[in-house]
Amino acid sequence: MKSWRPSRPSERPAGGLPARVVGVDPGLVGTGYAVLESGPAGIDVLDAGVIETRATMALAERVHAIYDGLWGLLDKHGPTAVVVEDLYTSYAFPRTALLMAHARGVICLAAHQKDLPVLTLAPAEVKRAIAAHGAASKEQIQHSIQRLLSLAELPRPSHVADALALAFTGLGRLRLR
Amino acid sequence: MKSWRPSRPSERPAGGLPARVVGVDPGLVGTGYAVLESGPAGIDVLDAGVIETRATMALAERVHAIYDGLWGLLDKHGPTAVVVEDLYTSYAFPRTALLMAHARGVICLAAHQKDLPVLTLAPAEVKRAIAAHGAASKEQIQHSIQRLLSLAELPRPSHVADALALAFTGLGRLRLR
Repeated sequence: MKSWRPSRPSERPAGGLPARVVGVDPGLVGTGYAVLESGPAGIDVLDAGVIETRATMALAERVHAIYDGLWGLLDKHGPTAVVVEDLYTSYAFPRTALLMAHARGVICLAAHQKDLPVLTLAPAEVKRAIAAHGAASKEQIQHSIQRLLSLAELPRPSHVADALALAFTGLGRLRLR
Repeated sequence: MKSWRPSRPSERPAGGLPARVVGVDPGLVGTGYAVLESGPAGIDVLDAGVIETRATMALAERVHAIYDGLWGLLDKHGPTAVVVEDLYTSYAFPRTALLMAHARGVICLAAHQKDLPVLTLAPAEVKRAIAAHGAASKEQIQHSIQRLLSLAELPRPSHVADALALAFTGLGRLRLR
């Protein structure tokens, strides 16, 4: 598991019950994650990175590594929800999408076993929330989320930026409820 | 979980270490399973059926039900391997395939957590082993597997027949090793 170091210190807000969510961008090779907390002082990046698996690992081993990695994050950060992207049917790479869905399955399982709700967001909804329009490019998402979270560096790889975007949008949705 | 009752009594072979495998045909709505044992007296159907989930359940709940159902079967029967169909990329229904892959992910996870190897078989290989040609229809598979296992009834639904076919072919492969 490779942690992408957020440049902002993660300070806990002084008062009020913080909302804390884990955004997850599933992929069999790399699953991006981001733990965001919303408090009176704003939104803090508590953790972000990629759970990586090696191509030499069997599929069962890889889904296990992803499940274990997420389980550890849920244990460590005790979030109130997990946010993932909605499924859509027109994936450009069907095989990659099928493998992604294996990862997404064990991510949903881990969340359910931890009694956490899984919030699913449409890709266009996330893009609108982050970059103001539903057809933003990966690069636009990276730059917008950097600005929104006042990050000194551009979040990389795009799996991390996508996980940050999911968590950020999810926090907004949960606060509106 | 709905168990399809095999008509043949499941007798344990008198001597020799039996090979016992669980064939699994993943689906989010219904996951077929079949537990076959190969001993000196032939092949016995120890268990077969479908792990069903309801459409009202959230996806996380559904994958959990599938994971739990399979976990129970692995506990009960202590197999030596789990057999699933290989992935292929040209699924007729992309959304169904994506949901299937969620189920397949948690099935592989459960097998890995039980330290069981996951044997994957190409659909054409299973069809050739069961119905003598690689393009057999679902009905041909149902009738062939009924005959091969001397079942009084046609295995239904096709998820069960497919799981029986996977387990049967997997047993053959494991014995050849």
